Amino acid sequence: MGQENIRIVLDVMGGDNAPSCNLEGAAKALKEKEGFSLILAGDETAIKEGIDKYDLPKDRVEVLPTTEIIEMAEPPVMAIRKKKDSSIVKGMEMVKKGEAEAFVSAGSTGAVLIGGQTIVGRLKGIRRPPLCPLIPTEKGTACLADCGANVDARPEMLVQFAQMGSIYLENMIGIKNPRVGILNVGAEEEKGNALVKETFPMLKECKTINFIGSVEARDVPAGYADVIVADAFSGNILLKTYEGTAKSLMKIIKGVMMSSTKTKIGALMIKKELKETLKIFDVSAHGGAPLLGLNGLVVKSHGSSDADEIANSILEAQLFYEKDINGQIKKALELD
Amino acid sequence: MGQENIRIVLDVMGGDNAPSCNLEGAAKALKEKEGFSLILAGDETAIKEGIDKYDLPKDRVEVLPTTEIIEMAEPPVMAIRKKKDSSIVKGMEMVKKGEAEAFVSAGSTGAVLIGGQTIVGRLKGIRRPPLCPLIPTEKGTACLADCGANVDARPEMLVQFAQMGSIYLENMIGIKNPRVGILNVGAEEEKGNALVKETFPMLKECKTINFIGSVEARDVPAGYADVIVADAFSGNILLKTYEGTAKSLMKIIKGVMMSSTKTKIGALMIKKELKETLKIFDVSAHGGAPLLGLNGLVVKSHGSSDADEIANSILEAQLFYEKDINGQIKKALELD
Repeated sequence: MGQENIRIVLDVMGGDNAPSCNLEGAAKALKEKEGFSLILAGDETAIKEGIDKYDLPKDRVEVLPTTEIIEMAEPPVMAIRKKKDSSIVKGMEMVKKGEAEAFVSAGSTGAVLIGGQTIVGRLKGIRRPPLCPLIPTEKGTACLADCGANVDARPEMLVQFAQMGSIYLENMIGIKNPRVGILNVGAEEEKGNALVKETFPMLKECKTINFIGSVEARDVPAGYADVIVADAFSGNILLKTYEGTAKSLMKIIKGVMMSSTKTKIGALMIKKELKETLKIFDVSAHGGAPLLGLNGLVVKSHGSSDADEIANSILEAQLFYEKDINGQIKKALELD
Repeated sequence: MGQENIRIVLDVMGGDNAPSCNLEGAAKALKEKEGFSLILAGDETAIKEGIDKYDLPKDRVEVLPTTEIIEMAEPPVMAIRKKKDSSIVKGMEMVKKGEAEAFVSAGSTGAVLIGGQTIVGRLKGIRRPPLCPLIPTEKGTACLADCGANVDARPEMLVQFAQMGSIYLENMIGIKNPRVGILNVGAEEEKGNALVKETFPMLKECKTINFIGSVEARDVPAGYADVIVADAFSGNILLKTYEGTAKSLMKIIKGVMMSSTKTKIGALMIKKELKETLKIFDVSAHGGAPLLGLNGLVVKSHGSSDADEIANSILEAQLFYEKDINGQIKKALELD
């Protein structure tokens, strides 16, 4: 790996700012790095216009024309089954057939998850693929495994999430021997619901990870663990509370800053520095989340992705292949 | 109710700042309101010294001497069983025997929950008592039911949590016909784990509550729902992420404010207003959380409670009786 040309399908129709931001993002990614080409899946006319408008290099892009769009609120299982000519279904089929290495989408999370499992398919031996976003902490970056794919997970799945999350974080972010914590309601081993209690000793015995025990939700933003293992329901609650609390706090702080002439002047003096620092702590700005353990790669970009975030998700897909994450997962988990 | 003298047991030994802050809090509560007396449970010498030091009115306090202390990290079931002469066990026994109406503690959450269920006992017909903290939102105050008591809850329990949480919030905070939402990973009815999917239609059919459907964790801080129904595991993740994110953000903002002379000057101009506003949004400062549905009342105050928070928890217990919350729960849930 690493030397060949990697083919990445970009879902041009997915996300709140599609198709324009997706195409602009494609242009940015292609400009930033060599070594990959893009297959642009979606409305042919819009794509061709975008190729001209954003000056995409024609030798590195091809068009995969599709006519259907899977909407955000559509029940995902049905959508994947019915909309055979959508960018998600046709794009993922290319990965399935080996005609592309990765699929990147800012579209419906549900459809991307279902499509990833049913069209692209799992690596042999992987029980379920977790959706693993990177989250900002006081100390840097942590990885949440799982936050979306498996709401009623089993202990054996969580152990695989821990292993795959560790490989992902170590190789993509460069955190050596990442500390794995299981999301729990207390620090003591006897704490937790049935799932956590059953999973805890299995994680303790797993030789390929650096398990540090339970991590309370309160300690995640402070950076107590690098890989946070959770069922998708709890993981989603964690991620979304993170996002919502930060948003509400910012709104409140802004209100205070605008409340009088004095505070307005004060705000002017810290505004720039504050904005830059808080950007680092923005959950939604951390690019794409991979669905790990697939026979190929699916990257889910935030629904509200702008061109930069789309570009980041594309470059993340490329790095994933350069680092041979799937090869390392197979080796560490002794698959096949 | 409302006219008689309410007897509240205060656990003088529980919490990070015990016994001094607990006794100071007792003094504050007694000074603020009439209509109740306190039974101070704990080390006799410390209590007698505190009564003198904080000038507690001797006609409104009595001492319940105990010699054992249940530590924060002790396995709670064993602690309740073994430490018969602890402030938690002896205090709760008084409620059980009808010698007191309420028990207030900032001690071990686990021990308070176990003691509440096994010593004080449930109202007949209540499956499980939820721990229901009030949480700050952009719009005011919401109530989380449950955040600590039942990590592996059943749908029937969650319906009772919704009913009891509604009565509590309406009467204690004055929110008429509070909007009940079930904590979920998406807004659509088909979303959720097995527990949520099973509970959703039951909440929809429940006549005594104002059910508005699913509420995503992201929308809780913005105040989309008044009563948030959850199993204790998810509820705890929500509450603790709230707390942790706010704490980390504040730390980061403080760092920015102290980063240069310019920002330091700016910070001075908004500091006071910011501090006051953010206090409102501090999860930990919202006083005590009741364990609802008991044959009596147990209020859990935050472990790090200062004198004001202890006083608030005591006054909350008094109000709970004045408003006859248990009578209303019995009526609405048609218990007995």
